[in-house]
Amino acid sequence: MSVKQEAAKLNTKMRNTVPLVHNITNYVTVNDCANALLAIGASPIMADDILEAADITAISSALVINIGTLNQRTVESMVSAGKKANELGIPVVFDPVGAGASKLRNETTQRILEQIRITILRGNLSEVSYVAGLSASTKGVDTSKEDEDKDAQAVAIAAAKKFSCTVAITGAVDVITDGKRVVRISNGHPMLSKVTGTGCMASAITGGYAGLREDAFTAAAAGVMSMGIAGEIAFEKAGELGTGSFHMALIDALSMLNEQIIEEMGNVEEE
Amino acid sequence: MSVKQEAAKLNTKMRNTVPLVHNITNYVTVNDCANALLAIGASPIMADDILEAADITAISSALVINIGTLNQRTVESMVSAGKKANELGIPVVFDPVGAGASKLRNETTQRILEQIRITILRGNLSEVSYVAGLSASTKGVDTSKEDEDKDAQAVAIAAAKKFSCTVAITGAVDVITDGKRVVRISNGHPMLSKVTGTGCMASAITGGYAGLREDAFTAAAAGVMSMGIAGEIAFEKAGELGTGSFHMALIDALSMLNEQIIEEMGNVEEE
Amino acid sequence: MSVKQEAAKLNTKMRNTVPLVHNITNYVTVNDCANALLAIGASPIMADDILEAADITAISSALVINIGTLNQRTVESMVSAGKKANELGIPVVFDPVGAGASKLRNETTQRILEQIRITILRGNLSEVSYVAGLSASTKGVDTSKEDEDKDAQAVAIAAAKKFSCTVAITGAVDVITDGKRVVRISNGHPMLSKVTGTGCMASAITGGYAGLREDAFTAAAAGVMSMGIAGEIAFEKAGELGTGSFHMALIDALSMLNEQIIEEMGNVEEE
Repeated sequence: MSVKQEAAKLNTKMRNTVPLVHNITNYVTVNDCANALLAIGASPIMADDILEAADITAISSALVINIGTLNQRTVESMVSAGKKANELGIPVVFDPVGAGASKLRNETTQRILEQIRITILRGNLSEVSYVAGLSASTKGVDTSKEDEDKDAQAVAIAAAKKFSCTVAITGAVDVITDGKRVVRISNGHPMLSKVTGTGCMASAITGGYAGLREDAFTAAAAGVMSMGIAGEIAFEKAGELGTGSFHMALIDALSMLNEQIIEEMGNVEEE
Repeated sequence: MSVKQEAAKLNTKMRNTVPLVHNITNYVTVNDCANALLAIGASPIMADDILEAADITAISSALVINIGTLNQRTVESMVSAGKKANELGIPVVFDPVGAGASKLRNETTQRILEQIRITILRGNLSEVSYVAGLSASTKGVDTSKEDEDKDAQAVAIAAAKKFSCTVAITGAVDVITDGKRVVRISNGHPMLSKVTGTGCMASAITGGYAGLREDAFTAAAAGVMSMGIAGEIAFEKAGELGTGSFHMALIDALSMLNEQIIEEMGNVEEE
Repeated sequence: MSVKQEAAKLNTKMRNTVPLVHNITNYVTVNDCANALLAIGASPIMADDILEAADITAISSALVINIGTLNQRTVESMVSAGKKANELGIPVVFDPVGAGASKLRNETTQRILEQIRITILRGNLSEVSYVAGLSASTKGVDTSKEDEDKDAQAVAIAAAKKFSCTVAITGAVDVITDGKRVVRISNGHPMLSKVTGTGCMASAITGGYAGLREDAFTAAAAGVMSMGIAGEIAFEKAGELGTGSFHMALIDALSMLNEQIIEEMGNVEEE
């Protein structure tokens, strides 16, 4: 069975089992993350106080840590929740939003990666490059799309080996790897970058798929592919109207997504 | 006059008097709560720092406390605001989101109920059962809908007597009681559970109705019924498009709601 | 070239240069602020921890401070970020949400104005009156619209002189002044007051225009005018459907806004 077929089947399993996903995330896009999880068939719970973070993780099927608006109080909760997840074998998705942009984000990222075993790391090329201690050679405006794609793959594989986890770098072409297997996903639409939180939502729903406790690599591919396909459907339905309508249509598309749509629309290149 | 008629009249009064409603609530659904309050004809204000919580309550017509993403800092603000509300005779709506799910939520719920006189308690069967120190016998998947309804009514009445307040348990059938009077409301649509925050919004707009300082029992019925009717209208308009469109249509429906629509669509069974 | 023409040109410049705008803002409307900035052609970043606030400001083109849900932790971050902005010559937009409503808001407003050089102050008549130490004579219900407009202009000029900044008072007619030049903008629609965050969004996108480092007075006019025009377009498209659809159409309109639309629809009276 292809990765696409396996990923598609996870969508059906999600809708049948409704995994609870604990999110310690940012306050900018948290509503979209909750609605994206509900739309894809999971159940969201948000809790970030140190006195309950680990308790909530313990009753959840997956933990998603997103440092988009981290603060000193919630960083402690992220670490506490992450340790509990590791202790109980609960998968952890980490979205290092803005890694590289401030000392606090850099130190927090380092601390999380040192103290917590991450299951899936999802970010853009710049973030994952920073996290992996590599410099992306592709930041210049003159870099060709082809070079960027090649570079993303090298960075993703290096990060996956370094942290012994699955890595998903999202961009024009998404790269998913566990260090051995690699898939490249060409779904999505440029308008996704004109709505805040589409990366955060991709991480959140990847948490939903990871919560099914099947293969993490397949879960990451399913999460990223679901978001990309929903973006294409949303653009088709509402792209001409503007980014507000597109935003709404994106949640619509996630809520209507199913195994058959993923099989038909998934644009996956397996190596 | 029936409870439905009285509740419907409150909607007109709300639009004429625009009560200010202070919300100390969670960051997941706070935007929806503010927009739901504006849509129904009230005016929202959110403030959760201990240095201003009581001051803001003092200029408001009602206080809504929602522990969806409580933390140690805001719990103190909830208590401070609640005490000020009690001192000034300002109605307090309490939504014990996730009560039973963590020690912090349980202890906070207990503290709020001990230190603050609640006017209206709104939650689902599981939350209110926990709060009232009862176990809902209906959590198993095999429980019939009829049993669940009977159980909700018993739990609601017990909680209302225990805390001398009005209790609203929302579910497929909503039960509202002040310990003596009981109404059962059969409005709403299952899709409401696929958008985050519909419970929070129900509590928020109940705060708007409570801020009119009429009978609290009628205010709770009006809040719950308004949300249910809006859910039915939204499903009719946009349910087939997905949960993003439904979410938007829900706010649309709240903003177009009026006395006549509530009278026509309210599905209320008085005992 | 008229102020309107200059403001319109800024929209094209924004879409070409995509300024990064650092927002320390409230959790009620933060998602809308981010999406409004993306829609207008800027790039939002939200960061409010004291350990990174100044760092994030340092890499941004503008800073927007909004005290809508201030707390003791974030007030320190606002001051830290503001000082860094002043040090580096980065423009600062200040939105004193609810100034006058609590001691905490009043003291914070005073502190920010004492310790930070503000580039643009944007608020409603009541807020700016409070900030400027003036009482708006127009709060009574019997005040004519004409009196309110005259009063807003006097308050705006006084505040602009007091703080040596540009002041934008938004209302039925918006007044923008730098103490010498004055424009009155008559765009917008009453429905804007039925969606939370339209004032916050106006401040956020004003931050985007200010980040272009052209004349601050023109930037403020562009920000306020963009929001007003988007409100008119949104009402035309979706006003009859309700406030949820209007909210979505507002973001749509911001995302479709361009130099030509601003030139055609801008309703600006220059003194």
